[in-house]
Amino acid sequence: MAFIVKKIISGKEYYYLNENKRVEGKVKTKTLAYLGKEKNEAEKKAAEIISQIEKGEFKMEKDEHNKTEELKKVEKSEMKMESKKIESERELENKNNKVEIEVEPRKKIDEITRIASSRGIFFQTANLYGGKAGFFTYGHLGKQLKMNWENLWRKNILGIGDNFYEIQSNNILPEPVFKASGHVDNFNDPMTECKKCHFRFRADQFLEEKGVENAGSLSIKEIDEEIKKRNLKCPKCGGNEFSETKQFNMMFSVNVGFENEKAYLSPETAQGAYVTFNEEFKATREKLPLGLAIIDKAYRNEISPRQMFFRLREFSQAELQIFFDPDTINEHEDWDSVKNERVLLKLASEKEIKEISCHDANEKLHIPRFYLYHLCKVQNFYLNVIGIPKNKFRFRELDEKERAFYNKIHFDVEVYLETLGGFKEVAGVHYRGNHDLVGHQNISKKNLEVSFNNKKILPHVLELSFGVDRNVWTLLDVFYSMREDGSIFKFNSAVAPIKAAVLPLVKNDDNLTDFARKIYLDLKEDWNVIYDATGSIGRRYARNDEAGTPFCITIDDESLKNNDVTIRIRDTTEQVRISVDGLKEAIKLSVQGKNILDLMEKINTRKK
Amino acid sequence: MAFIVKKIISGKEYYYLNENKRVEGKVKTKTLAYLGKEKNEAEKKAAEIISQIEKGEFKMEKDEHNKTEELKKVEKSEMKMESKKIESERELENKNNKVEIEVEPRKKIDEITRIASSRGIFFQTANLYGGKAGFFTYGHLGKQLKMNWENLWRKNILGIGDNFYEIQSNNILPEPVFKASGHVDNFNDPMTECKKCHFRFRADQFLEEKGVENAGSLSIKEIDEEIKKRNLKCPKCGGNEFSETKQFNMMFSVNVGFENEKAYLSPETAQGAYVTFNEEFKATREKLPLGLAIIDKAYRNEISPRQMFFRLREFSQAELQIFFDPDTINEHEDWDSVKNERVLLKLASEKEIKEISCHDANEKLHIPRFYLYHLCKVQNFYLNVIGIPKNKFRFRELDEKERAFYNKIHFDVEVYLETLGGFKEVAGVHYRGNHDLVGHQNISKKNLEVSFNNKKILPHVLELSFGVDRNVWTLLDVFYSMREDGSIFKFNSAVAPIKAAVLPLVKNDDNLTDFARKIYLDLKEDWNVIYDATGSIGRRYARNDEAGTPFCITIDDESLKNNDVTIRIRDTTEQVRISVDGLKEAIKLSVQGKNILDLMEKINTRKK
Repeated sequence: MAFIVKKIISGKEYYYLNENKRVEGKVKTKTLAYLGKEKNEAEKKAAEIISQIEKGEFKMEKDEHNKTEELKKVEKSEMKMESKKIESERELENKNNKVEIEVEPRKKIDEITRIASSRGIFFQTANLYGGKAGFFTYGHLGKQLKMNWENLWRKNILGIGDNFYEIQSNNILPEPVFKASGHVDNFNDPMTECKKCHFRFRADQFLEEKGVENAGSLSIKEIDEEIKKRNLKCPKCGGNEFSETKQFNMMFSVNVGFENEKAYLSPETAQGAYVTFNEEFKATREKLPLGLAIIDKAYRNEISPRQMFFRLREFSQAELQIFFDPDTINEHEDWDSVKNERVLLKLASEKEIKEISCHDANEKLHIPRFYLYHLCKVQNFYLNVIGIPKNKFRFRELDEKERAFYNKIHFDVEVYLETLGGFKEVAGVHYRGNHDLVGHQNISKKNLEVSFNNKKILPHVLELSFGVDRNVWTLLDVFYSMREDGSIFKFNSAVAPIKAAVLPLVKNDDNLTDFARKIYLDLKEDWNVIYDATGSIGRRYARNDEAGTPFCITIDDESLKNNDVTIRIRDTTEQVRISVDGLKEAIKLSVQGKNILDLMEKINTRKK
Repeated sequence: MAFIVKKIISGKEYYYLNENKRVEGKVKTKTLAYLGKEKNEAEKKAAEIISQIEKGEFKMEKDEHNKTEELKKVEKSEMKMESKKIESERELENKNNKVEIEVEPRKKIDEITRIASSRGIFFQTANLYGGKAGFFTYGHLGKQLKMNWENLWRKNILGIGDNFYEIQSNNILPEPVFKASGHVDNFNDPMTECKKCHFRFRADQFLEEKGVENAGSLSIKEIDEEIKKRNLKCPKCGGNEFSETKQFNMMFSVNVGFENEKAYLSPETAQGAYVTFNEEFKATREKLPLGLAIIDKAYRNEISPRQMFFRLREFSQAELQIFFDPDTINEHEDWDSVKNERVLLKLASEKEIKEISCHDANEKLHIPRFYLYHLCKVQNFYLNVIGIPKNKFRFRELDEKERAFYNKIHFDVEVYLETLGGFKEVAGVHYRGNHDLVGHQNISKKNLEVSFNNKKILPHVLELSFGVDRNVWTLLDVFYSMREDGSIFKFNSAVAPIKAAVLPLVKNDDNLTDFARKIYLDLKEDWNVIYDATGSIGRRYARNDEAGTPFCITIDDESLKNNDVTIRIRDTTEQVRISVDGLKEAIKLSVQGKNILDLMEKINTRKK
């Protein structure tokens, strides 16, 4: 029986004519012909071939010369997969004909949220008490996903420099810290109130909804003028008289001790690094650049938390403050390694994204080398470590009005998120100058200069700032996919909360269970893996697809005889048999970022 | 030239007569005789032997029969070390005659604090602004130490059960959560004020200082009576009239949003797990026991922070809440594996520590098996993973007055800390019953029962609660040691912030530097290692001893020829040469907890 199969390879669709044959009691699938990329055409071609088969006239194509280069490539990767297939009858219906389905953004957000709460990725915090906007809890899968992201950040962002370190400061910091940073005076949202119904709301957001561009950069006076000029109405009662817009400080304040000393919950982790700089500079033997990273919570009393993980009241940041000698801003000892790398810049002055080498960005756009070096490393983290598709990634330059006045150069990292309808900020690369150290110097009345290269300097700061929760949401958005058999998160193995699920096919066979448990415990030494013995194998696959588990490892009677297992690969639903001895290495390679096909090659080599 | 050497093996002192000989251009050390455990005797014996040598009459002892069993054991381990020594001349003065020095607790605390701030373990937070009691920052070494401890906790405490998971809740939780938990009403410190000078202080601590035992368990009325009865004087002005003692709530409160809704900074991570229990129970497929762990900050507005990391205002907890069916409290599926293990209990009714098997504790003391199983795992974590000496560890049972009223069984984990002058609480094993879920049920008016084993139950909770910072301080206290050549932290390799330091002997040799960098980068893939090329080798060793780095890896000219390196072992200052190929495995074994001697055996096997 021949049948049409649609495959999605690298996001493109390809049609094939396949046939199942029973070989030694097992059903095996064989590809008879490639049918092209158009559904109608494929059906026509398939009908022809089937009629040829029925007449006994069909011969498998042999002539390589008539094929296009692209087809050859597709077939090559197809053949690779094909050659490794070992199918058993019970899996057949689950196999090889999984079609990906496009999903509307609204449906996508609903489906992600549904999986999140039913599978333990995230919940509204204290749902029991109705929850509270801007607060959420990571369930067991979400926490693992977040920790994996953080550990990759440690390895790839904190790992950029030998003299970069992680420290831990406090969430509660005394008031003078935020006088120095400017947060006490400037970290405000403009709030206004309807004089009729007393509804209070954020004036800048209100204006933005009414079509005022960049309302966030208007002064209070300008906001009030805009409201009047446009004769805007209260969104609740329709009244058109408003109180004067006032600034509302977004920090949470706390009182410490019996003396009620004022302190604040830190709205960014950065200040903890600035007030520790001088001590760490000494402790790390007085070298520049010195990087101090903090991964911790930050708190902002948002008036209207929104956009999932993008405006939270309590959230996590991963920030790296790199202190450097400003005289060396156009140098980096490792510049040669990045100068030909191309970065994706959306300049403030241009509409399109420009792909430009670091060398050219330095020469033509006059972006300093020290800045570009780190920009390039950040891009590498997103594209090559996390696996964000290139077309969903860009650095967006903020113009002078948008960026903080002290940021001399400011590019945001933006990722295209379908669920939020566009490119969204997930990180930023900020050249903050010596703004913060000057501030702390002024308020503390202490000289924070250090001796370096035979001179006294106040270092400048390059900040790599990442919103961890935003990045977790980015993983959920970018790697979510709906397939005809259900929802699936196609996380990189490095990111996936569960690296593998060990699934014994029979539940009540002690030998099988012991064998499976042994494999499970062995893998658990190195990774978060699960053992799941209940439910049909199909349901267990589906559960693991929803959790984004890259590998399901099934154990059957044959396993005991041959000391091998079947690995079912999440993204393709391919199944390969592999010796138990090679299992750990296979998963390790995948976690290190080797792609599935390379991995299968490796496995095969092992088996030979 | 023969000379006396004192060695400390397992905390005991042994004297030896050693001799240096130049062999093929290198100075090698040979042990001529064991001199016993007494200094005077050893000196006498040494003088004799030296005179024999001078007269040419000395013969090395061969007669095994005259030796005591203990001596044989010592010599055996000594010989093991001896046989692996390869010494070069330049290291000689640093070698084999390191004597450990006893340090007064006060000096110990000063020395730990000095190293902490000069090397980056911890600092007072925002020193720049004078700091604030109860807040401190982990520097780069301290943060790594803390993370290592946390990861060991994850592996060994969270890893106890298959159905145990880590989640992440919020630090800011809404008020009803703490109404339910009892913190709003009961989490208070008794405060009193001198009527004359208006000095305010904690009444219970005041009484304790004046010799009242268990003042913490007195009611407010009893406190006032005690103060009167004893005619106590104000510690500031000497006045003897006080205002009535009042309760001061120790939670930090914050106001959320424009509506100023009241919320609190969580004073324990536990509540985050309780309010998430029902969601996670579903997400993890409705099995009991279910463990939910949180490692996060907690906050208490202590009136007088003190005792280093033991009374902080912002601190980290690692807490595991195990929800279980109360009908099965005297069962654990893995009971057999612990029943013969002996736990160290200091019962409330007894003065001495009792070493008792879990089986007997269950039969004779009627402690339930589910509780004992976890108690035993906690003890294993401290003794075998962290490496706390057995004589510094105990579980102390709290009597009814001391423990929270809802805790049905409560043993604290206590470790003997020289710096704080006694056994101190670092963790607790609390059987909290269904106190918390009942509280949340009452306040939320929601039924929190779950279906399990064909019945509806409100699970009971066993809490394993650890103060992370207290445990970090414990590491600093227990593993600190002063040697004649300086201070040293003898951390387990698993705990040590830096696993190895790569030290090229010559700085300006490109070949050597490349070779050393390659080794450094290779090790860095798996661990936190440092590369340090500056300063004399002795100073570099000393720096790494202070940081608790177990291995210094030196690279010299020979290394390039033979593809090997010298490992200098921190605790003994022994040096062994090892092939580069075996280096990673050696460190891995050490991190896994194999002891140094086993490790050296392994290396030697490799080299053969």
